[in-house]
Amino acid sequence: MGSGMSIADWFVSYGNTAFEIIGTLAFALSGLIEAARKKLDIVGMAMVTFLAAFGGGTLRDILLDRRPFFWVQNQFWIWVVLAMCALALVFMRARHIEPTERATAWPDALGLGIFSAGGTLISLQAGMPAIVAVIMGVITAVFGGVLRDVVVNEIPRAFVDHQPYSVVAFIGGWVVVGLDSIGASAFIAVGIGAAFITALRFMAMIFSWRLPTWRV
Amino acid sequence: MGSGMSIADWFVSYGNTAFEIIGTLAFALSGLIEAARKKLDIVGMAMVTFLAAFGGGTLRDILLDRRPFFWVQNQFWIWVVLAMCALALVFMRARHIEPTERATAWPDALGLGIFSAGGTLISLQAGMPAIVAVIMGVITAVFGGVLRDVVVNEIPRAFVDHQPYSVVAFIGGWVVVGLDSIGASAFIAVGIGAAFITALRFMAMIFSWRLPTWRV
Amino acid sequence: MGSGMSIADWFVSYGNTAFEIIGTLAFALSGLIEAARKKLDIVGMAMVTFLAAFGGGTLRDILLDRRPFFWVQNQFWIWVVLAMCALALVFMRARHIEPTERATAWPDALGLGIFSAGGTLISLQAGMPAIVAVIMGVITAVFGGVLRDVVVNEIPRAFVDHQPYSVVAFIGGWVVVGLDSIGASAFIAVGIGAAFITALRFMAMIFSWRLPTWRV
Repeated sequence: MGSGMSIADWFVSYGNTAFEIIGTLAFALSGLIEAARKKLDIVGMAMVTFLAAFGGGTLRDILLDRRPFFWVQNQFWIWVVLAMCALALVFMRARHIEPTERATAWPDALGLGIFSAGGTLISLQAGMPAIVAVIMGVITAVFGGVLRDVVVNEIPRAFVDHQPYSVVAFIGGWVVVGLDSIGASAFIAVGIGAAFITALRFMAMIFSWRLPTWRV
Repeated sequence: MGSGMSIADWFVSYGNTAFEIIGTLAFALSGLIEAARKKLDIVGMAMVTFLAAFGGGTLRDILLDRRPFFWVQNQFWIWVVLAMCALALVFMRARHIEPTERATAWPDALGLGIFSAGGTLISLQAGMPAIVAVIMGVITAVFGGVLRDVVVNEIPRAFVDHQPYSVVAFIGGWVVVGLDSIGASAFIAVGIGAAFITALRFMAMIFSWRLPTWRV
Repeated sequence: MGSGMSIADWFVSYGNTAFEIIGTLAFALSGLIEAARKKLDIVGMAMVTFLAAFGGGTLRDILLDRRPFFWVQNQFWIWVVLAMCALALVFMRARHIEPTERATAWPDALGLGIFSAGGTLISLQAGMPAIVAVIMGVITAVFGGVLRDVVVNEIPRAFVDHQPYSVVAFIGGWVVVGLDSIGASAFIAVGIGAAFITALRFMAMIFSWRLPTWRV
């Protein structure tokens, strides 16, 4: 954002931010949809939406002892969540929930990529060993949804749906670790890691990949 | 508590403390009642009572990275909670729960006022932006109950009962922010904020106000 | 582990470590069994196993503001948990769960002793008052299981089963406090405390002791 910003820099800054916004909105929307399905009131809607959007990153920061949280530095997002809830209360109807959720899976894959790759790199920079950093990346992207489900009294979807979701983030985390270990810049490591994760997640959705299941 | 304490000072110190005690007992009692309803054992009773009384403030302090916690500095309260549980095991019967719970709503409104106004001010003093401080105030007063409900496997009442409870704390938080921003002392800001919130909560109970609901 | 290590020292170091390993494996196994019973997928298995094994100590460290976590310093354990899950997916069948769980109760009592006595001493060394340290000890040993149960949508067994489990850890915590206050070394305080707790837990199991229950 300095004065001598090149077009590439501009794209890097704002393209990155655009994906982040898309990912955060997709995560928040997953909370809003869950809240609507459970017929929560406006308070529950705001809390669950907020948890879904920022719970994973907040938990990671508590584990890493990092402050301030993203939503403290960017309190604008709190207003976005509140506005989403107010809008939802007026416009959203129960019968729109199913198609909205299916439509959300694609931007959600962007969030999965960006937040898990980003969370992995942040953890590496905080001095965590590789395996811990990769798990922190998974937590960043996945635990918002886990907290969302726990709070509304469901077994977390991420733990039972046999979808390659956290596993994709786990695999992609090692791409970030590898790129970081050979000296790639933060932008390259997160960018390639996020693209890899998002692409793998898209493939998992397109080809209906499933995780191995119990032999009962 | 200095030697030159005036009557007004005395009232301020001890009146304030008295309200805090009433609020904490009301919150703890809500945990005890929930534990009794779920037929928890003595361990569950102690844990849920403790969570209901101190969970909100503890979560706020973790988010703000403040130590020591209230219950570490005032470990006397831990003994109070343990004594409440021991008494409950002897005296309380299931048929007393409903009337006890209704009677608890009034002191609980005191707790709502004091803890949310206090939590907001503590967060402002920790350098949080206004909207974050207001939310921290709501968390202080409401998340004890949320954790209490999550742990006994209920959707948090604060998220589904359509009662103006968290919303009242949210509105009152802005009163604290306003008073603080015009240079009011901590005592004035929290005192007026807490009185405002408690009064509004009383009105919500008397007039049976409800939050807007889903159009299904 | 210095060069002049006596046989007693050797036993102390490695005997202690051996018990820790047995306790951690028992705790992890309790998570794995719960995950299998709930038919979680591989991600849920890994998360619940991990929570059961390390959740209590991690929560204690967050409350005490201690870093790094055990599993960050000993990331080898993360691989052990992942390997356990992979093995479970291949070998474990639903019909083996009940006997496995009964067999686990004995090593689990070792974990209860070591982790609650250890957690109490760590908290004393962090400057906590005695009652807080004892509760931190209980949290260390018990909250892994609590988080395990909350996440899979069960009321925590530790809160409802009327087994003298947390209570045994609570009583034994005071043994650690007493030994520490008379100047016993860390090894003696934790060793005797852990042995006391494990023995008491064995007796509770052998004689089928029960906690007092509600008069309804």
